[in-house]
Amino acid sequence: MYNNSKIAIIGGGGWGTSLASHLASMGLDVAIFVKEEEVCNEINNNKTNNAFLHGIILSDNLKAYYKDFNFEDYSLIVNTVPTQFISSFYTTNGFKLKDKFLVNCSKGIEKVSHRLISEIFEKDFQLEKSNYAILTGPSHAELVARNKLTSVVAASTNENFAKYVQKIFSNKYFRVYTSNDTIGCEIGGALKNVIAIAAGINDGQQLGDNAKAALITRGLAEISRLGIAMGANPLTFSGLSGLGDLIVTCDSIHSRNRSVGERIGKGEKSSEILANMKMVAEGVHTSESAYSLGVKFNVEMPISTQIYKIIFFDKDPVEAIRDLMSRDFKEEIY
Amino acid sequence: MYNNSKIAIIGGGGWGTSLASHLASMGLDVAIFVKEEEVCNEINNNKTNNAFLHGIILSDNLKAYYKDFNFEDYSLIVNTVPTQFISSFYTTNGFKLKDKFLVNCSKGIEKVSHRLISEIFEKDFQLEKSNYAILTGPSHAELVARNKLTSVVAASTNENFAKYVQKIFSNKYFRVYTSNDTIGCEIGGALKNVIAIAAGINDGQQLGDNAKAALITRGLAEISRLGIAMGANPLTFSGLSGLGDLIVTCDSIHSRNRSVGERIGKGEKSSEILANMKMVAEGVHTSESAYSLGVKFNVEMPISTQIYKIIFFDKDPVEAIRDLMSRDFKEEIY
Repeated sequence: MYNNSKIAIIGGGGWGTSLASHLASMGLDVAIFVKEEEVCNEINNNKTNNAFLHGIILSDNLKAYYKDFNFEDYSLIVNTVPTQFISSFYTTNGFKLKDKFLVNCSKGIEKVSHRLISEIFEKDFQLEKSNYAILTGPSHAELVARNKLTSVVAASTNENFAKYVQKIFSNKYFRVYTSNDTIGCEIGGALKNVIAIAAGINDGQQLGDNAKAALITRGLAEISRLGIAMGANPLTFSGLSGLGDLIVTCDSIHSRNRSVGERIGKGEKSSEILANMKMVAEGVHTSESAYSLGVKFNVEMPISTQIYKIIFFDKDPVEAIRDLMSRDFKEEIY
Repeated sequence: MYNNSKIAIIGGGGWGTSLASHLASMGLDVAIFVKEEEVCNEINNNKTNNAFLHGIILSDNLKAYYKDFNFEDYSLIVNTVPTQFISSFYTTNGFKLKDKFLVNCSKGIEKVSHRLISEIFEKDFQLEKSNYAILTGPSHAELVARNKLTSVVAASTNENFAKYVQKIFSNKYFRVYTSNDTIGCEIGGALKNVIAIAAGINDGQQLGDNAKAALITRGLAEISRLGIAMGANPLTFSGLSGLGDLIVTCDSIHSRNRSVGERIGKGEKSSEILANMKMVAEGVHTSESAYSLGVKFNVEMPISTQIYKIIFFDKDPVEAIRDLMSRDFKEEIY
């Protein structure tokens, strides 16, 4: 696969479209598989995907499909299907992953099962661990599409594959670092969304920048504690997939997770917000997984626990913050 | 000193005033020593310090001095004198520190000598290492004065002293964690100002949020590399004194360091900005120290090096960013 491979991007949302156009613009042989016929036609006929990536002209040589797709022709698969739909999506479409190489660009933890995305691909689709990489970090799709400087990390237990991903995705606007810590990168990318809900509550309650910086920092501390218990390298969480992505999400006016938190901070009840959301923000599911994994691995997750209680039991956020601030005196690293 | 100690805050700027009022409000016996007679009179007569902490009413029982100060009566000293003036200030005022306990709340590295603040107090004033603590983290003075939630870290090689500092500074708005890593906390607090200049350049050039998050993350990575070489605990940099303070400074519209960077990013020459600054932003000095310490400890400091060249040699920031983005492919942790 390391030469002249054909690349399939799976998923035609903002991130999938942006990455597909990025790769195609460097002369690679790239196809994108999307769900909706209209999106497919718009990409092929107009070189735009205005519903998901407004106002961006896509690379000329990008070809889109929504059916009649010869999945078996592609050796390198780039996944952007949202976490909660991965298992059903690949199953329904009959996409076989055995012997493929896959770069996952989605973030999250599967609800109920609490599986990482790598586990879904390995268990349900017999993808080899050494054929799996994750590409993650602070990367708003629209900014990548506009050639704004972006740095991310490609992690794989297979060093050669990580370096290959680094090589094909890099250009002068898009810098890729490598890592061997897939678990750490996946956990950081998933759990940041829970802390983003907390950051939104901080914003909604106007608690100020000192509190928000502390929340992000202590949030990263509990993500790290859980990650270490699950086998991650502690230093990964200080990197682009941990800290970097956490910062950009907690400050973003576009983050659906942060904005759910902001509405809660301003006084809306979580149960009412969720009842009216078309697509549930990923951090909502992840808060339950974070709580459950914390219990399973016996790791203190004070912020995630409060967010879980706020989201699923309508706990008063003022009371939740009081509970956080009145915990026993602690050392910073424990 | 662990009971009924009299506390002297040295320095009547925003941070000194805010901390003095915070401690006094909890019933402690606190005096603040300030430089200017007017500031002293305003604190004593009006319970305000409007030049440095506009619109805040200070604690009733706070007493200010600018002369006739019996320094020897105080067993616990809280330093807020800016880094570059510490050595001359304590010398000029004849303040003897032998046998005192000192909590340092200033941040920076002494220029030319490239000494940490702990080294200044130990070498020039014979302060015992075990009598030194640093209190640091994301803590805008004005927000602390307004009782906005704030979390910081108290670090000392003397665990009991760190816990004492934790105990006397904590209340329901102000949460203190302990650490034994004074070196890591000092380096993080100093070098964040260099990265804040870089973040300002990013803002001035409108490079976007992906680039800024990456800059903060890679900035923290090089701070960590230097800190580890100087004997710090790697995990300290993911904490409140590292990451936490870095975030708040890089996003702050109040940071003088970030705003120097923003002006450079918009096209002003560093030499012209510095020629007209009343008080030079701390990160300007620190960029030279970071560069020199990087060379001394043989640590790659790519961002700090570019900032040093921009600040002291008017290097074009566009060229500096190109140089950063075109470095060899790297692993994330090295």
